[in-house]
Amino acid sequence: MSLKWLSLLLLQLICYFSSGRCGKVLVWPLEYSHWMNMKTILDELVTRGHEVTVLISPAAVLVDPNKSPTIKFEIFPRLLDLWTNMAKDSFWTYFSTVESLFWEFSDIIMQICKEMVSNNKLMTKLQKSKFDVVLADAIGPCGELVAEILNIPLVYSLRFSPGYFFEKYSGKLPVPPSYVPVIMSELSDHMTFMERVKNMIYVLYFDFWFRILNEKKWNQFYSETLGRPTTLVETVGKAEMWLIRTYWDFEFSRPLLPNFEFVGGLHCKPVQILLSQEIEEFVQSSGEHGIVVFTLGSMISNLTEERANTIASALAQIPQKVLWRYDGKKPDTLGSNTRLYKWMPQNDLLGHPKTKAFITHGGTNGIYEAIYHGVPMVGIPLFADQPDNIAHMTAKGAAVRLDLEKMSRTDLVNALKQVINNPSYKENAMWLSTIQHDQPVKPLDRAVFWIEFVMRHKGAKHLRPAAHNLTWYQYHSLDVIGFLLACVATTIIIITKCCMFCCRKFVKIGKKEKRE
Amino acid sequence: MSLKWLSLLLLQLICYFSSGRCGKVLVWPLEYSHWMNMKTILDELVTRGHEVTVLISPAAVLVDPNKSPTIKFEIFPRLLDLWTNMAKDSFWTYFSTVESLFWEFSDIIMQICKEMVSNNKLMTKLQKSKFDVVLADAIGPCGELVAEILNIPLVYSLRFSPGYFFEKYSGKLPVPPSYVPVIMSELSDHMTFMERVKNMIYVLYFDFWFRILNEKKWNQFYSETLGRPTTLVETVGKAEMWLIRTYWDFEFSRPLLPNFEFVGGLHCKPVQILLSQEIEEFVQSSGEHGIVVFTLGSMISNLTEERANTIASALAQIPQKVLWRYDGKKPDTLGSNTRLYKWMPQNDLLGHPKTKAFITHGGTNGIYEAIYHGVPMVGIPLFADQPDNIAHMTAKGAAVRLDLEKMSRTDLVNALKQVINNPSYKENAMWLSTIQHDQPVKPLDRAVFWIEFVMRHKGAKHLRPAAHNLTWYQYHSLDVIGFLLACVATTIIIITKCCMFCCRKFVKIGKKEKRE
Repeated sequence: MSLKWLSLLLLQLICYFSSGRCGKVLVWPLEYSHWMNMKTILDELVTRGHEVTVLISPAAVLVDPNKSPTIKFEIFPRLLDLWTNMAKDSFWTYFSTVESLFWEFSDIIMQICKEMVSNNKLMTKLQKSKFDVVLADAIGPCGELVAEILNIPLVYSLRFSPGYFFEKYSGKLPVPPSYVPVIMSELSDHMTFMERVKNMIYVLYFDFWFRILNEKKWNQFYSETLGRPTTLVETVGKAEMWLIRTYWDFEFSRPLLPNFEFVGGLHCKPVQILLSQEIEEFVQSSGEHGIVVFTLGSMISNLTEERANTIASALAQIPQKVLWRYDGKKPDTLGSNTRLYKWMPQNDLLGHPKTKAFITHGGTNGIYEAIYHGVPMVGIPLFADQPDNIAHMTAKGAAVRLDLEKMSRTDLVNALKQVINNPSYKENAMWLSTIQHDQPVKPLDRAVFWIEFVMRHKGAKHLRPAAHNLTWYQYHSLDVIGFLLACVATTIIIITKCCMFCCRKFVKIGKKEKRE
Repeated sequence: MSLKWLSLLLLQLICYFSSGRCGKVLVWPLEYSHWMNMKTILDELVTRGHEVTVLISPAAVLVDPNKSPTIKFEIFPRLLDLWTNMAKDSFWTYFSTVESLFWEFSDIIMQICKEMVSNNKLMTKLQKSKFDVVLADAIGPCGELVAEILNIPLVYSLRFSPGYFFEKYSGKLPVPPSYVPVIMSELSDHMTFMERVKNMIYVLYFDFWFRILNEKKWNQFYSETLGRPTTLVETVGKAEMWLIRTYWDFEFSRPLLPNFEFVGGLHCKPVQILLSQEIEEFVQSSGEHGIVVFTLGSMISNLTEERANTIASALAQIPQKVLWRYDGKKPDTLGSNTRLYKWMPQNDLLGHPKTKAFITHGGTNGIYEAIYHGVPMVGIPLFADQPDNIAHMTAKGAAVRLDLEKMSRTDLVNALKQVINNPSYKENAMWLSTIQHDQPVKPLDRAVFWIEFVMRHKGAKHLRPAAHNLTWYQYHSLDVIGFLLACVATTIIIITKCCMFCCRKFVKIGKKEKRE
C-alpha cells in the first residue's frame, strides 16, 4: 500500500514539475462495459498524475470500490435480470422492452441521484475538494447535475443515447435521417427508399419517446435542485466535450461537431501478457487451421441446454480449435477441439497470430478488440446496441450475423466457414484494423488530451456551436423562411392588386371612350 | 545544385528505409497567398522524402518555377489588376464585382485547364509518372479533372468557396444558415433575426449563382473531356480529403465531416531568424511603448496620396514605433516614429515581445500569424474574404475594424489606442493563440498525415459520407416525408369514408325504424 502511495506521490510530483497542471477529476460512471471502457481513461489520467475520484455504490459490480469518496448507492439487480433475460422478437416488441427498461433504469438512476445530491455532507465534501472537471457517462443522467451544482466543467463519455437524442437535442449534432441510420435500427448508411422510410419512422418514434421522457420528472427534479427552471436537455447540453466511444472503422461517416471527439477503441492494446502454458499449448496444437475465440460477454453466463448443445455440436464440426468462455453446464455434444473457460484473456487471444475468427455477442468493447487485431466475426447479438453493432460489422464486410434463438448447427458451421475461408472477411477486418491504427493520435491520447484541455482552460467554449442559443424553429430557420415567404406573398399581392387596379382603370376608360 | 540533389536523394533513402512509403505528389496550385500556404505543405512533404511535382505557368508570379514538369500557362495580369483596384461599396455592388471577377477567373482557369488536358505529350508524361495523389487548391478548378484522367486520389487544400458551395454541394458539408454565417457575409455565429434573414438571402443568392455556374460550361467541358456525362460538382465531390485552411480559433464552431480537416495556421512558425541590426535597433528604441506592425498585403503596393498621408499622420500621433511595409511614394506627413519597408520579416516581427498591435488588410495568412503570436489587430480589409476575416476577429474580440476609404486620422489613432490600451483585446488574442497552440497534433502535421494516408491507402473512402449517393430531395428526405404524409392522408380519408359510410347506414336504419 505504501508503495502505491509512493508511486502516486511521485506521479503528482512529475505532473507538478512538467508543463501539464495536475487536475482533480470527479467521475460519474456506469456499470459493466461502460465502466471497463471508462477505467482505461481513468488509469491513464492517474498515470499522468491527475487525482481521480469516482462516485460509486459500495455494492458496485465491476466499478472498483478502492476509490474515495464512496456514497451509499442502490445497485441494479432487478434491471440486470431484466436485461439478460430479455427476448428479442420483432422490432416493436424489442423496442417496447428496451423502452420500458430505459424507463425503469431512468427511475433507479433518478432515485440514486436524488439521494446523492440531497446528501449535504457528501456535496459539501465534493464542493470543498475543488474538482477541475466532471467526467460522466452521459447515458446515466446525474453527472451534469453534479457539475452544475459544483459549477465545474463537464466532459462526457458516451457510446450512444437511444435515437441519438442527447447528441441531437443537447449536443446539437446534426443527424440527417437520409444517410445516418438511427442507432439500434440495424440499418446501414446505404439505404433503399423503404429503409429510409423505416429510418424516418424510428427517428419520429425516438423523438416522441424522448419528448415524453424529457417533459417529465427529470426537468422537474433538475429545476427543483438547481432552484431555477431548467430541463434535462439543457443541463446535458452544458457539456464542454463529448468523447464518443466509436471511430470511423466502426461508424458510417456522418456529420460531427468540433466538440465531438470519436475515440472508439481507446481501450485496445497490443498483446501484452503471455498466455498460460495450457492455453498456449492448446492454441499451438491447432496447427495451420488456427483457433476460434468465442464469448457472449459478461452479462450472459448461461444458455438453455438445447442451445448450448447446438452450438457445441457445430463447433465440433470445424477443423479449428475453439476457446469458449462459458460459465454454464458442460454441453454433452462438446467436441474435443473445444475447451470451456470461465474467463479468458480475450484481447491477447484475439491478437494471437493463430486466431481465425471471433464469435461474439457484439458488445462494442469486444468488437473493437476484434477490429484492433483484424479478426473477422460471427455475431450472435443479444440485446441493446448489439444487433446494431453487428449490423455495422456486417455492412463493412467483416462479420456474419446469426440469431441465437433460431440458428441451427449448420448455420453456425456455415457462418464460421464463410468468415474463415472467404478471404474478403479477413481483408475487410484488416482494413478496419488499419483505420484504427493509422490515426494521427491514438484515441486514448485524444480522450485524455481533451479532458486535460478542459481542465487547463476551464472549458472549451470555442468548440461550442451557437446552435445552443436557438430555439428549435430558429435552428431550422422556420421563422426566417416564414418571414421571407410572407414578404414574397405580400409583394405578389401588392403587385396583383396594382395590376388589377390598373386593368380596371383601363377598362373604365375604354368603356367611357366607347360610350362617347 | 549537386548538394540539393544529394540531400533530396538522402531524404528519399531515409523514406525508403523508414515505415512511410515514399510517394509522388502532383500539385495543382493557385497564386499569391494560396501558394504561400500550400508551399508550406509541399516543403514538409519534400522533407519527408516525397517527390513533389507542381503544375505551373512559366510566367508564374509567386509559384517557384524550379519544379518540373512545366507547361505553357497563361498568367492572370488582367484579373490581378481588377482585384487590386476593386472598390468596396455596398454589399450588392461588392458582390456583383466579386461575382464578375469569379466569372472572369473561371474563364481564364478553364482556358488554362483546356490547354493542359489537351496537351497529349504532357498528359502522357503525367500518366507515366504514376503519381500517388493530386493535391489541388479547390478554388481553381482543374485539379479534380487531372486526378480523374490520371485515375488517382485527390486531396484538396481550401480556404473557402463562395457561399461554401463546393463544401456544401460537392463535399456534402452541412451548413445550417441559422448559426453558420455564409462566407463573405461578415456576420458572426450569434445573429439577430434580421441577420438570420440576411444570411438566408445570401445563401439563396449564392446557391442561385452556383447553380448558374454549375449548369454551364464546366459541366460540358468536364463531360466532353471525361467522355461521360458528369458535372463540376460531381468531379469536385470525388475528393478524398478536404484540408480547410482555418481552425476553431478563427472559425465559429460549425458542423464538419470526418473527411474535413481544419488545418488553419499550418504555415505559422515560432520566431526563426534574427532581425537585421537596423530593424532590431529600431524595435528596441520603442522602449516600453513597443511597436506596431503594419502591412496591407502583397497585392496592394500603392495607396492614394491622400490616404497615405492620413495614415502616416495618424501613425505619427501614437507613442509606439511603427514598421510599415509600403512600396509607394513616401507620405509627407510621415512621423519620425514610422519607418517604411518594401519587405519585412512579418512573422518574426509579430512574434517579437515588443509588438503591441498589427494593422492588417485581413488576409488569412497574416491573421493566422497574428493569432499564432497573440497580437491584437486593427483590420483594414480590402477585398475578397478580408472583410469577413476581420469580422471574425472582431466578433472574437481580438480586432477593431476600419474602412480604408472612409477612415479619418482620428479613427485610426482611436482604433490603435483601443487595441493597445484596452487589455481585453490582448487577452482575446492570447486566447486565440492558446487555441492554436494547444492542439493534440500541429495543423501542418495533420495536413501531411492525411495526404500520406491517402497515398498509403489509395484513398480514404471510409471517411466519405453516403450523402454522395443521394439526390438533393433524397438528401433532405423530401421523398420520404411526402410518402409518409400521403400514407397519413390516405389513412385519414379511408377512416373518414368508413365513418361516413357507417353514419349513413345508421341514419338509414334509423329512418327505416321510424317509418316502421
